[in-house]
Amino acid sequence: MSITLYELAGSDANRPFSPHCWKTVMSLAHKGLEFTTVATAFTAIPNIEDGATKRVPLIRDGNRLVSDSYAIAEYLDETYPDRPSLFAGKGGQSLTRFVESWTQNVIHPFAGSVALMEIHDMLAPIDQVYFRESREKIYGMKLEDVPVGREQRLEEFLKKLQPLRALLTGQNFIGGESPLFADYIVFGAFQWLRICSAFPVLPAGDPVADWFDRCLDLHDGLARRVPAAAAL
Amino acid sequence: MSITLYELAGSDANRPFSPHCWKTVMSLAHKGLEFTTVATAFTAIPNIEDGATKRVPLIRDGNRLVSDSYAIAEYLDETYPDRPSLFAGKGGQSLTRFVESWTQNVIHPFAGSVALMEIHDMLAPIDQVYFRESREKIYGMKLEDVPVGREQRLEEFLKKLQPLRALLTGQNFIGGESPLFADYIVFGAFQWLRICSAFPVLPAGDPVADWFDRCLDLHDGLARRVPAAAAL
Repeated sequence: MSITLYELAGSDANRPFSPHCWKTVMSLAHKGLEFTTVATAFTAIPNIEDGATKRVPLIRDGNRLVSDSYAIAEYLDETYPDRPSLFAGKGGQSLTRFVESWTQNVIHPFAGSVALMEIHDMLAPIDQVYFRESREKIYGMKLEDVPVGREQRLEEFLKKLQPLRALLTGQNFIGGESPLFADYIVFGAFQWLRICSAFPVLPAGDPVADWFDRCLDLHDGLARRVPAAAAL
Repeated sequence: MSITLYELAGSDANRPFSPHCWKTVMSLAHKGLEFTTVATAFTAIPNIEDGATKRVPLIRDGNRLVSDSYAIAEYLDETYPDRPSLFAGKGGQSLTRFVESWTQNVIHPFAGSVALMEIHDMLAPIDQVYFRESREKIYGMKLEDVPVGREQRLEEFLKKLQPLRALLTGQNFIGGESPLFADYIVFGAFQWLRICSAFPVLPAGDPVADWFDRCLDLHDGLARRVPAAAAL
């Protein structure tokens, strides 16, 4: 039986953009598991599966409901141990948390603020109301003001990627020769940017850009099927 | 037969300070392996073991010579698989490289520049000549000028630790419930600072400071036996 993935969607269900949902899409593909997606708007999340979660991704696998991209990856590795591992051992499982924390603290604040208006514009009207209210509370300013100065902040952000850049100069994936869930965590953040925003972030020739390109090629180019915002 | 560890030393052989050598000391203790250390001055490194290495740590284990703290950890896990693992699997081995890259790019530049004069002052006169020449070339300025403004740079540095801080708010070690080589990589950098410099870096109550304290307690308080510079 196929797994159901509830993933965040804007007004165009064919352009899923949530970084966390992309982590799960890539995790399911990595395991070679069949799945169908249910496009879910921000304001529709509380109603799915009888209020099972406040956030997506949420998967249903038979009787089991699992939310949170990290918990889903752990669930998939435990439940389908014969398929390619997302962690490659207990040490990998622990250290993936560091990659997650780095991504959440270094990439997400930049990506989220840079693309904020463009994310807003992708949403259905009712979700735009929710998004504006919740995000203006978080940022303490008008939505329109958050991305201001992103061109000036880019250089500083690219410097912060140096630990990743240095690593990827010597190896193809964060996981080594092949990707692990740690790759999908970082990939999710850049895929979010790629789909939401036409603002160019990774310069051509940057080892991080080359790695991102390799990730887009994975699993028969699954993540490339959604065109980049810049290409629209 | 006991392993021999060649480790960097200043004029006081009882105050080994190299971050890379501390990684290996902690690795050997983690594996529960007996070892003896050979204090080695900067300018003496080319002469040890018939010129086997340009840098320490270097270990001799029977007939085998292994240099580089990461390669040594891999060697120890391969050679002594029945003892506690430093990587806990292939995924851990790969992702430790990210922790290493983060440490080298975020902690080392700060720690090295902050403590530069104090490191210089710990060396024997002949090593001070080598150290000044090589470091003034790297930094492109007089040795005395490098640490200037470190008080102002501290706040920015502490912000950069946020990925580590957030992680250690939820778990005791980078490796999870118990330490892995990834912990020793980051530990080595802070131990370097602790031994060389009286400049206070980690504020009391910072989860990173609490974690560092837990590391100092490991292996019967092995790393605490060298008193902090501030305590001298």
